[in-house]
Amino acid sequence: MNKAWRSIILLGLISLLLAALAFGCAQKAPTPPTTATIPAGEPDPAVWGKVYPDQYASYLKQKEMTKGNSKYGGSVPESHLKEAPVQVKLFAGYPFSEDYNEERGHVWALEDVTKTQRVGPKTISSCWNCKSPNVPPLIEKMGDSFWSTPFDQLKDQIKHPIACADCHDAQTNALKITRVTLLDALKTRGVDPAKLSRQEMRTMVCAQCHVEYYFRPEDKRVTYPWKYGLKMDDAEKLYEEINFKDWDHKESGAPMLKAQHPDYELFSTGVHAANGVACADCHMPYIKQGTSKISSHQIQSPLNSLSQSCQTCHKQSEQYLKDQVIGTQDQVFKTKVSLEKALSDAIDAINTASKNPNAKAEMMTQARTLHRKSQWRWDYISAENSMGFHSPKEALRVLGEGIDLARQAQLTANLAVGTAAGGTANPDAGKTPGAGTSVDAAGPGAAPKQQ
Amino acid sequence: MNKAWRSIILLGLISLLLAALAFGCAQKAPTPPTTATIPAGEPDPAVWGKVYPDQYASYLKQKEMTKGNSKYGGSVPESHLKEAPVQVKLFAGYPFSEDYNEERGHVWALEDVTKTQRVGPKTISSCWNCKSPNVPPLIEKMGDSFWSTPFDQLKDQIKHPIACADCHDAQTNALKITRVTLLDALKTRGVDPAKLSRQEMRTMVCAQCHVEYYFRPEDKRVTYPWKYGLKMDDAEKLYEEINFKDWDHKESGAPMLKAQHPDYELFSTGVHAANGVACADCHMPYIKQGTSKISSHQIQSPLNSLSQSCQTCHKQSEQYLKDQVIGTQDQVFKTKVSLEKALSDAIDAINTASKNPNAKAEMMTQARTLHRKSQWRWDYISAENSMGFHSPKEALRVLGEGIDLARQAQLTANLAVGTAAGGTANPDAGKTPGAGTSVDAAGPGAAPKQQ
Repeated sequence: MNKAWRSIILLGLISLLLAALAFGCAQKAPTPPTTATIPAGEPDPAVWGKVYPDQYASYLKQKEMTKGNSKYGGSVPESHLKEAPVQVKLFAGYPFSEDYNEERGHVWALEDVTKTQRVGPKTISSCWNCKSPNVPPLIEKMGDSFWSTPFDQLKDQIKHPIACADCHDAQTNALKITRVTLLDALKTRGVDPAKLSRQEMRTMVCAQCHVEYYFRPEDKRVTYPWKYGLKMDDAEKLYEEINFKDWDHKESGAPMLKAQHPDYELFSTGVHAANGVACADCHMPYIKQGTSKISSHQIQSPLNSLSQSCQTCHKQSEQYLKDQVIGTQDQVFKTKVSLEKALSDAIDAINTASKNPNAKAEMMTQARTLHRKSQWRWDYISAENSMGFHSPKEALRVLGEGIDLARQAQLTANLAVGTAAGGTANPDAGKTPGAGTSVDAAGPGAAPKQQ
Repeated sequence: MNKAWRSIILLGLISLLLAALAFGCAQKAPTPPTTATIPAGEPDPAVWGKVYPDQYASYLKQKEMTKGNSKYGGSVPESHLKEAPVQVKLFAGYPFSEDYNEERGHVWALEDVTKTQRVGPKTISSCWNCKSPNVPPLIEKMGDSFWSTPFDQLKDQIKHPIACADCHDAQTNALKITRVTLLDALKTRGVDPAKLSRQEMRTMVCAQCHVEYYFRPEDKRVTYPWKYGLKMDDAEKLYEEINFKDWDHKESGAPMLKAQHPDYELFSTGVHAANGVACADCHMPYIKQGTSKISSHQIQSPLNSLSQSCQTCHKQSEQYLKDQVIGTQDQVFKTKVSLEKALSDAIDAINTASKNPNAKAEMMTQARTLHRKSQWRWDYISAENSMGFHSPKEALRVLGEGIDLARQAQLTANLAVGTAAGGTANPDAGKTPGAGTSVDAAGPGAAPKQQ
């Protein structure tokens, strides 16, 4: 009897303990989402914020404008044109030559797209596609007439910058592809979006917008050039096939391609992608916010969250990790600057040659094609948002090709006029008549090799 | 009394068990080295092999000639000149244009150095420095007169290819720097060799020879150009300072630099070095040989020992690891080939221009300097033994610079004669007299821009 009582008391204590533990755990876990109050497709993040206050609080931190730990990038809207005036020349004849700033956080998307000088009376609504959760319902309503509708005409209906509804389903909170443009592109690639894993979705919601795109000529529908694959060369192949150009370069006359921000595509060629890492793993790490552990919605450079973003896999010190990232970016930056110089020389050479009535037309066309191809490579890496870190080797390969092509553009333009044109200045030009001018140089005869 | 007996028996059993365990461990551990039979500095590896039979057995496997898992490299003495005939042109006027094969294992060092057509009556003993454990005693005996002694004169005293004594102390078996040339270089860098850790020594014994070097002009002492640092640019800075050249290029007339095999230097700039990985960690992984676990002395590509070399740190599959390495090498190789084409075009342009009596001397000098600098970059990566894998980003940066400089060499040579010279052929040359020849192109006037 004594033993039986002891057993009953012990059992009672264990039950109490388990109940207490269960209660404690329930207290610690984040409040289970109660989405009852969010209407389907609700565009206003403040409404979502009532159900997800911690995520919303971190989302609002996107307002911060800071370089943080970044050497390149950050969220301060500095002018790329002031930093590197050569870009004014590279974009000559295109609005990017007038206004081109570092982008700020998602919450600034509407202010930035409406205030940039690149937007004018000819701007179309394709430019709204990635700026607001008000867009998908509009596209659904208007169909393909949406894209070419004047930008200003839809201004009043677009009220919220990039927010919750762009990536989440309001009812289930599941990640969701809301942009038809990505759905189009996945179809082209033979990918069934229904079969994407949650980890893949943690990349694909970003790939809705952080990609290269063009406006389909017939109706200006935003289109990703993925027909042949995700690499720079694949996009170029498509652009050549459809004879696409964004503008004619004002100085060289070349039919140019403007790269957008192929963050997802470049990332896809890198070692992080090869290991199944998602965009959100680094850019939206798990953090403690308020009383819960959430995926940070202050989407930003992982340099500002090294311990949460990098050290989950890489056990080295924060200083080491920062040095590796910035050291890599330094190498890409240096090579990018070399390409800018080569492009500038190429543009000068083509420009000078084009003023010569005897320039060989075929070679001038060839020089312009080379300018187009080399600047496409430069812009692909320059417009991409990681200074090459998303895939450093691929970035350096692409820039190396760009340098080769830019210098060949310069050479070809020079050869088109058969004279010293543009680029590297001839320090003796005009000084020593009769010696070394192109007229004399055209004379025959082989002389002993000079040393 | 019963209890006391039980305790005694238990204690006895435990003691027996411990003794058995201790005996078992002793049996499993490798025979402790008994170096009594190895005389100090013993050059013959077979003598060491009697004390270290397992290490010696793995050392002898270096005789194997195989591509193994390598796409680039391997230990088959294939001709680089046959693989890439453009190299005959790049090395014009230098023995590497006549005979340049992929290297075999250390055990072949003597056969390969004596049979190569690069060695002739003018070859000096500096070329023995890294080929045999017979060398250090000779240098000790002969002092700096060793270096310029005719190669053939010491042939009979050099009997063993690279072997145990090159890296180990015969008495203690400890790792040992036996080459004065590395000791010189460490002094230049302010490094005290006595303070190197064992892990550092697992790299430094390799850095005795797998480095860039030149022959000090006054006495031909083998010297590593580390005065300003270990990077490509640092070596170049020194070579410029001392006005060094290896040969004059037969076609361009440029004063050229030949890169040796800066494996250690390139590795030093990479991510493995930054994490304290030593050469031996990857190239001499721990393997089971005979009854013991030893550091493999079949020094070779880690692609042939992915599980022992890579998977100790990298937990991905062997196929993934192989794909990463070869994918990286593919990118470096592709960029290297672009640079070879650019160099070939530069050489043609300089060669053509140099036959023109009116070529501007100053610009020709500039073009030759650019040829020197660009080919130095190419050779630095080409002669290095990892197709860039030791530091892919640095390799790609260096090659990108090389492309820029080679194309500038070509441009400058063209400008020196103010005409279409070399490189990109002019398809219309001579076809349309009076239109587009350099004589006409020299005419004045700006025409409307051609499209």
